[in-house]
Amino acid sequence: MTDTSAGDPVRLLESLIACPSVTPEEAGALDLLERELTASGFAVTRLRFEGDGSYPVDNLFAVRGNSGRRLLFAGHTDVVPPGDLANWTSDPFVPRQADGKLYGRGAADMKSGIAAFVAAAAAIPADAGTIMLAITNDEEADAINGTAKLMAWAEQQQHGFDFAIVGEPSSSATLGDSIKIGRRGSLSGLVVVEGTQGHVAYPDRANNPLPTLARIVTALSDVTIDAGTKHFPASNLEVTTIDVGNPISNVIPAKGSLRFNIRYNDLWTPETLAEWVRERIASVDHNGAKVSFSIPGAPSRSFLSPLSADVETLGDAIAAVAGKRPELSTGGGTSDARFIAQYGPVVECGLVGSSMHKADEHILISDLVGLTEIYRGFMARFFGLGA
Amino acid sequence: MTDTSAGDPVRLLESLIACPSVTPEEAGALDLLERELTASGFAVTRLRFEGDGSYPVDNLFAVRGNSGRRLLFAGHTDVVPPGDLANWTSDPFVPRQADGKLYGRGAADMKSGIAAFVAAAAAIPADAGTIMLAITNDEEADAINGTAKLMAWAEQQQHGFDFAIVGEPSSSATLGDSIKIGRRGSLSGLVVVEGTQGHVAYPDRANNPLPTLARIVTALSDVTIDAGTKHFPASNLEVTTIDVGNPISNVIPAKGSLRFNIRYNDLWTPETLAEWVRERIASVDHNGAKVSFSIPGAPSRSFLSPLSADVETLGDAIAAVAGKRPELSTGGGTSDARFIAQYGPVVECGLVGSSMHKADEHILISDLVGLTEIYRGFMARFFGLGA
Repeated sequence: MTDTSAGDPVRLLESLIACPSVTPEEAGALDLLERELTASGFAVTRLRFEGDGSYPVDNLFAVRGNSGRRLLFAGHTDVVPPGDLANWTSDPFVPRQADGKLYGRGAADMKSGIAAFVAAAAAIPADAGTIMLAITNDEEADAINGTAKLMAWAEQQQHGFDFAIVGEPSSSATLGDSIKIGRRGSLSGLVVVEGTQGHVAYPDRANNPLPTLARIVTALSDVTIDAGTKHFPASNLEVTTIDVGNPISNVIPAKGSLRFNIRYNDLWTPETLAEWVRERIASVDHNGAKVSFSIPGAPSRSFLSPLSADVETLGDAIAAVAGKRPELSTGGGTSDARFIAQYGPVVECGLVGSSMHKADEHILISDLVGLTEIYRGFMARFFGLGA
Repeated sequence: MTDTSAGDPVRLLESLIACPSVTPEEAGALDLLERELTASGFAVTRLRFEGDGSYPVDNLFAVRGNSGRRLLFAGHTDVVPPGDLANWTSDPFVPRQADGKLYGRGAADMKSGIAAFVAAAAAIPADAGTIMLAITNDEEADAINGTAKLMAWAEQQQHGFDFAIVGEPSSSATLGDSIKIGRRGSLSGLVVVEGTQGHVAYPDRANNPLPTLARIVTALSDVTIDAGTKHFPASNLEVTTIDVGNPISNVIPAKGSLRFNIRYNDLWTPETLAEWVRERIASVDHNGAKVSFSIPGAPSRSFLSPLSADVETLGDAIAAVAGKRPELSTGGGTSDARFIAQYGPVVECGLVGSSMHKADEHILISDLVGLTEIYRGFMARFFGLGA
């Protein structure tokens, strides 16, 4: 690949699909982007982060302009594995057009978003303002050496932004019918209850931890955390496992544990939610057992971007292409937008994601062209160039 | 071993200890008994039972006399493994006398009981009445092809009995301070709760079975089953394990299970207790989950022998040797007496069991002589020969 195709999102997406960039293998995708962006006047920095218990990851930061309003686009070139190739009509890493669709792993999630943005940026004058791209190759797996570190690095380099768009497939059924203005947070917890082992025939010499464990499950499950907020559903806790592993029917076990996950709205931080959990645990009789609560791994913070004029402007750009304004959603799981939200307002705006992570992943080519026009139209308005 | 030692319980116990009869290896112990009993006028039948999911087991039934009152003695020649030999002062299968004690695996549990009874029976005239022995070589493990089948066979052969003694070590601190007139029953249960698996981010599309599982744990644990009876403590349930085994923190599991064990008194049968469990399970909200309850394995029935004149007579024989009457106990775990109780009154009367199943298992030789005299004195009274 020596020619560039910055103005043509379909050719660019095909080139990106041809790179088998299953996490964390960059497989030429970032090299390709570097050439495209350099050709469009961007200064490109490649950053390899590693450590913190995860594999090394290649990342890319690009910037064009150093004045005016500052727009950040974020996304990822890595894709999930194709799974059983027998389920694919053709090679997942050989792009294929048929019936107005473009097939290939990453077509929806989310090489298309990158291709559309790069093509749109190429159509915007370089002096219109500051455009930045933060692209990682590890969104689908650990996400430890990806966007989180890339954003921390960008802040150190004083690459602030006024508004950010993540190119994840945010549309529900048709292009532009939905953008995500926030995401719920996710916190996983572990509760261990320790009693005293003994023989079931002599319960007075033991202290069974399992009734206490069961009371804690009930205290965590049978309560409403909140009633939801304007843009979010009610926060919700699910106990995901309870494990004792005692194979002996005449032995009272020494301990047992439960794990839970909470998906929570913008009323909570991991810190306030952990305090809520501690209060729930403290509300039940421990019957002399030792109860410990910990949070394995890093919780995902919830975020809700301010409903600013920029969100309205994005709605204008979408309406101009799709014929109506998008729903402002906070549904679904977590995304890398949670790392960006710590530094400024961020929304997710991309294609229809119904085929993501599946065999025969695909997009409508007309949607890719439409998304490119949405991005271009938004940038023109954002930088005050008119529609 | 060609000479017999029927009159000498110490020599007989030493000979039995020398047979390494770890379950289910008979290792010559039953052959030895057959010779001893035949020499004392008993008709001996050897029975090998097998099948029903367990290993084949050697058993022995002996009878002398066919008129008058009928006394059954029951016991086992099998022993638990010696464990780490480094913990033993000498070879566990080479009997050793020291400081008035006799050491060896099975010394307490319960080759001593057998040796004492065989020695005592040899001192009773053959025409005094009917004496039977039911000896298994599988009490310490599965107990499937042992006493249960031996007793069923004996009933088929019309070997009924008026009173039975199991020679298990029933004494607590000193010889004869306690006999067991009953045992609690034991019932183990399994409860499986099945919901609908799903993603924690979309709880409305799933049905988490774990809150229901926790409510069942509470319903089974936080209730008094009964207040106990004259000879038994209150029945008691312990949840022994809760298992889900879901390693994925963002997945609501499809199902979970709990296991419990109930030790119960003479107010209950396995059938009435199972109904109690079903009612407790039905008392909580299942929240649409499918709940199934089963009883893996065979429950042990509780039993309480009638406090008859024969129990009084045994107390007389003990008082004559030990200086005081025994406590009538129902404590401890289960024993093969539960199989015998289905056919007639049974008590457990034997040595002090504090060293059973341990390294350097031993008994006081004076206790063995004393137990032989207790058995002999009881038989003399039981058959109306005077003290």
